[in-house]
Amino acid sequence: MDYEIYDVMIIGAGPAGMSAGVNARVRAKSVALVSRRFASPSLAKAPSVHNYLGVEEMSGTELYSRFLEHARRAEARLVEADVTGIYDMGGHFSALTSAGDISARAVIIATGAVQSASIPGESELLGAGVSYCATCDGPLYRGKRVVVLGYTAEAREEANFLAEICSEVTYVDLQRGKADKGTPLANSVREVVGKVVGIRGESFVTHVELVSEEIPVDGVFVIRESIPAERLLDGLVVTDGAIAVDREMATSVSGVFAAGDCTGRPWQVAKAVGEGLVAGLSAARYVDRALAAARAEGR
Amino acid sequence: MDYEIYDVMIIGAGPAGMSAGVNARVRAKSVALVSRRFASPSLAKAPSVHNYLGVEEMSGTELYSRFLEHARRAEARLVEADVTGIYDMGGHFSALTSAGDISARAVIIATGAVQSASIPGESELLGAGVSYCATCDGPLYRGKRVVVLGYTAEAREEANFLAEICSEVTYVDLQRGKADKGTPLANSVREVVGKVVGIRGESFVTHVELVSEEIPVDGVFVIRESIPAERLLDGLVVTDGAIAVDREMATSVSGVFAAGDCTGRPWQVAKAVGEGLVAGLSAARYVDRALAAARAEGR
Repeated sequence: MDYEIYDVMIIGAGPAGMSAGVNARVRAKSVALVSRRFASPSLAKAPSVHNYLGVEEMSGTELYSRFLEHARRAEARLVEADVTGIYDMGGHFSALTSAGDISARAVIIATGAVQSASIPGESELLGAGVSYCATCDGPLYRGKRVVVLGYTAEAREEANFLAEICSEVTYVDLQRGKADKGTPLANSVREVVGKVVGIRGESFVTHVELVSEEIPVDGVFVIRESIPAERLLDGLVVTDGAIAVDREMATSVSGVFAAGDCTGRPWQVAKAVGEGLVAGLSAARYVDRALAAARAEGR
Repeated sequence: MDYEIYDVMIIGAGPAGMSAGVNARVRAKSVALVSRRFASPSLAKAPSVHNYLGVEEMSGTELYSRFLEHARRAEARLVEADVTGIYDMGGHFSALTSAGDISARAVIIATGAVQSASIPGESELLGAGVSYCATCDGPLYRGKRVVVLGYTAEAREEANFLAEICSEVTYVDLQRGKADKGTPLANSVREVVGKVVGIRGESFVTHVELVSEEIPVDGVFVIRESIPAERLLDGLVVTDGAIAVDREMATSVSGVFAAGDCTGRPWQVAKAVGEGLVAGLSAARYVDRALAAARAEGR
């Protein structure tokens, strides 16, 4: 990816992220819309959406395809990539992604609701054997033993990818049997059903503790639909799992905004779209002011 | 109108009010949607709306007609009436309207942006010669001298209505010539163009002061697109013209919610629709809890 600083980088391509993208484009800002995939797992589960004002009743999948078409028409740049962290570089932000670094003057977090709670030990050992991205960190565990904790088709795919490079891969289904089984696991992946008690280790991961057994490991990959927001970015205030925002959808970090399910309930399309609009316009205004200030200083 | 207590009463039928109505109906609440007219003046001015996610570019008028159709399909009761005040009756609220009193357990204010600032003297003399509703208070000024301050077609219609019962009617265009001229004034109505300095009087209105002249009066009718929200309901906190709300769209008055342009900028359809959804669901939850509490007390 060519080095370039976008005006606005949006993490997540659900209704909130796409509304933010469309509206930042309305204000003539360059927009990178970064998402693991261009689909909405929660909308895909809705057989019918009937309460998005002015839109006739239709399936969540069809509504999503209209949203995506709208974002494309607005010429937001769509980047299919996993984001594992966002860093404040002083003047701009950089996101570490599976498609390389992406930089922008303002950031909008629209990563959706985090469906499962943190696992004991997860945050303490993040970066010390715990990873959120097999593509990014898998090569570090070549020939070693890893556990994948997940519940989505992506998590199963990541386990299969790791099976090609690691000596031993165990897949633990975090939703214990209720999860997506559509993607078969490779023969060399051992699947375990059992409640996770915690990820253990002192300075580095040593094992994963289940109710039924202990699994000795070199690395643990936790693959959820989205990363808990407080792990994405230092200093981001998150209360009861929801990113704290004000009426402008500004977060606790200057230049970073949030919209949609990640800011709290109700988890509904109209709320996400409305908040996305506000975040998109707020981010555009933030960028305008930052550029004006830089010009005034002759930078 | 038959006496009945609605679950939710919504004041205003723009995008926010209609989204609130649709979503309170989703939660099986009875809904009265009360508005001076079923049209959106601000949407009517939009030749094209292109940033409401998932909806192809269309005129504001066409988008509004889709919204109205959606509210009708959801079976919200549409009541065409002017609301001049809302009163907390202890357990429910009553709105004084030109179609009689309307009562509800919860209220959602979605009256849109107030386009013009308060006039000096207006709030001090409200109810002491200053009125917001010719239909309601006109008969009090039979055979007397009144001034109408306004800028909309409705304001001109109200002046014409008052000309039938009052001895002297002066119409002052608050937007000084930029306002709607579509509705001709009756011959007996004197039209004045000039900046209003204030509404004067000690315990009761005595005259209207313009830069160019003083008009002695018995009554003054201020007819805007919407009543300043703080005048609608005692105790409602309004900051810089915007009703103060929390993330649930609850106002400072328990049981009263707000959504859309009246809660502040940006004045955009998607924000209004999203806030309307949140207010509709919050009001429904408030009603559920109030009814459960009443049942628990055996009322």
